[in-house]
Amino acid sequence: MSERNRTVPRVGMVGGGQLSRMTHQAGIGLGVDFSVLAAGPAESAALVCGDVVLGDDRGLDDVLAFAKANDVVTFDHEHVPEPVLRAVEEAGGLLRPGRGALRFAQDKLRMRTRMTELGAPSPRWRAVTTLDHVAGFAEEGGGWPVVLKAARGGYDGKGVWIVDGAEQAREVVDRAAAEEVPLLVEERVDFSRELAVQVARSPHGQVAVYPVVETVQRGGICHEVIAPAPGLSETKAVRAQQLAIEVAQALDVTGMLAVELFETADDVVVNELAMRPHNSGHWSIEGARTSQFEQHLRAVLNLPLGSPRTNAPYTVMANVLGGEDPEVYRRYLHVMAEDPEVKVHFYGKDVRPGRKIGHVTVMGEDHRNLLERARDAATYLSSTRVPPASVGG
Amino acid sequence: MSERNRTVPRVGMVGGGQLSRMTHQAGIGLGVDFSVLAAGPAESAALVCGDVVLGDDRGLDDVLAFAKANDVVTFDHEHVPEPVLRAVEEAGGLLRPGRGALRFAQDKLRMRTRMTELGAPSPRWRAVTTLDHVAGFAEEGGGWPVVLKAARGGYDGKGVWIVDGAEQAREVVDRAAAEEVPLLVEERVDFSRELAVQVARSPHGQVAVYPVVETVQRGGICHEVIAPAPGLSETKAVRAQQLAIEVAQALDVTGMLAVELFETADDVVVNELAMRPHNSGHWSIEGARTSQFEQHLRAVLNLPLGSPRTNAPYTVMANVLGGEDPEVYRRYLHVMAEDPEVKVHFYGKDVRPGRKIGHVTVMGEDHRNLLERARDAATYLSSTRVPPASVGG
Repeated sequence: MSERNRTVPRVGMVGGGQLSRMTHQAGIGLGVDFSVLAAGPAESAALVCGDVVLGDDRGLDDVLAFAKANDVVTFDHEHVPEPVLRAVEEAGGLLRPGRGALRFAQDKLRMRTRMTELGAPSPRWRAVTTLDHVAGFAEEGGGWPVVLKAARGGYDGKGVWIVDGAEQAREVVDRAAAEEVPLLVEERVDFSRELAVQVARSPHGQVAVYPVVETVQRGGICHEVIAPAPGLSETKAVRAQQLAIEVAQALDVTGMLAVELFETADDVVVNELAMRPHNSGHWSIEGARTSQFEQHLRAVLNLPLGSPRTNAPYTVMANVLGGEDPEVYRRYLHVMAEDPEVKVHFYGKDVRPGRKIGHVTVMGEDHRNLLERARDAATYLSSTRVPPASVGG
Repeated sequence: MSERNRTVPRVGMVGGGQLSRMTHQAGIGLGVDFSVLAAGPAESAALVCGDVVLGDDRGLDDVLAFAKANDVVTFDHEHVPEPVLRAVEEAGGLLRPGRGALRFAQDKLRMRTRMTELGAPSPRWRAVTTLDHVAGFAEEGGGWPVVLKAARGGYDGKGVWIVDGAEQAREVVDRAAAEEVPLLVEERVDFSRELAVQVARSPHGQVAVYPVVETVQRGGICHEVIAPAPGLSETKAVRAQQLAIEVAQALDVTGMLAVELFETADDVVVNELAMRPHNSGHWSIEGARTSQFEQHLRAVLNLPLGSPRTNAPYTVMANVLGGEDPEVYRRYLHVMAEDPEVKVHFYGKDVRPGRKIGHVTVMGEDHRNLLERARDAATYLSSTRVPPASVGG
């Protein structure tokens, strides 16, 4: 670093996905030196970032060198193995969140154990290794179906199976045993909808919590987010926000924490945790004074946190999933002409069916209208073939 | 470009300043391929952009090669000489705005001539080459002071002189003659305040006009912008917006046009034009549904324009000027702790006294309160020395 800018910190983000891409975008505003450790030059963040380190974003040598080159290192995914995190910290690397927090986001067994210790509202659950364990768990509770989860490595519905009986359960248990993946079983929660809440926490212990949002999932993938969750009782909203703050403190999280929740008749129940900017917080780019990406940077830099106040009564985000047509840009013409208020975000990723390749956001007063417009735009960007757009006049 | 992304256009921006930097930031969201032609690797945009071409951003060879490598080329400044623009267009380069429009932003004599032809409200003005011309102009009108302007090369108050009499005028006329810079003289408009209005225009002829803003200038440099201009009459606001649209159409502008205006007792008067994102539009990053930077990209790509609707009753922007301390980052701690709603933008530029190195933005309902908060934050970021901040916990 040059002498003149020696107080501007260098932040490194491990992983070249869209979360790094959007964090870089926020970092441009803050004027911090931001670099990304990406597996390849065509990764989403590597396409746009001025300072890209190519390497193995899960391997000891590359993550260690990356940590040495940066004042603080953070993550766009949970996939750096714990021994690598440990070695980096022992070598003096500053990880935010640190290994002590990340291990609860990396391992669902540890997470459930810790949530139970904390008294956080949780589904009934148990670690299982055999079919008998699973069947016993089902018989003790409300019977089938139950939910089987791989303790590690899952995301976007991968590693989660809703099983209707012993036969289905056997397939999962046998495969997990063969692949040496620890399993847990959970009751299937009788929920009315899914919620999420984002909280930022800095090393000083300052926290900033965002409004509780409704997440609409299909096939284990988040399709839409409505911020704030329409019609959520004040009691449940405050309970969810307090829960997020307590979890962030208890687990010593630094940066953003997303808590995914089920809403039940009279409570909220913890489903999953993520310690990074999260899909359920993308609405905040336009919808809040401080986006989750800027907030994550402020938190990991130990800067005072920004206001999570909303910019409109409602903000709705819809994910754009890859469709049959690999070319998304030429769909902009229609979507932008149809709705001049829709904000299009495209991650520059290769289009593959079902893959998250972008998102759209709309702000306003009537959440039903916003949801319809966001869905229309996202669906159009996702699927049918349209004629090419041109920059010609 | 790869086969799979062949419909994603490549946009190149000539000049590596903060306008390119913030346009890159907007381009990340749109997912377009954005590159910058910068004079050096430490320029504001070059620090953060993934695709930087180093070269002479005013020279034929480099601008021509840059145009050939991009589908469309736009500008962060007006300093590319007209013969270069002509040669690039003749070689098939697509410039937006084109040479035919840019020449009115590059030359104040041409601009005044064209404004007069269009019947746009303008100060009394005349091209001058001798002291007698200047004195004659003063005598015919309201006497001294008058305003002398270099027809080319000025910005941020450079190349503009308010002269109180013949003696001061002689100095300017002699120096302009020695440097072969054409001069014009203008009456000093009796204005109550300065205003600006931004309009975007696409090659299809679509326009989107932003609210008229108040700009607070000191020493020829914009210090603060209040959007919209408080207490501006509907008549003057509409007149200013219509004027901006008419000028954009008449001059065949593509991209953003900023029209700087004087407010007089019963009208608005054209002061300057800029055909690019402009300091008076930085408020729109947070304050409008579509920022001027995204809008500029949409316009030069011939995409449908986005909504210029505001996100709050008032948005106030204040420039951060370099002070005595070269290190700005460590001031963040105080400013962010003091006001969690202030948005800090830092351009990564070397700090020199008086140089624009960043800006801050605040949104809300009471423009006086917002102006005070924006000034406080900008002043603090600009000047006195403070203890170092640390990323340590």
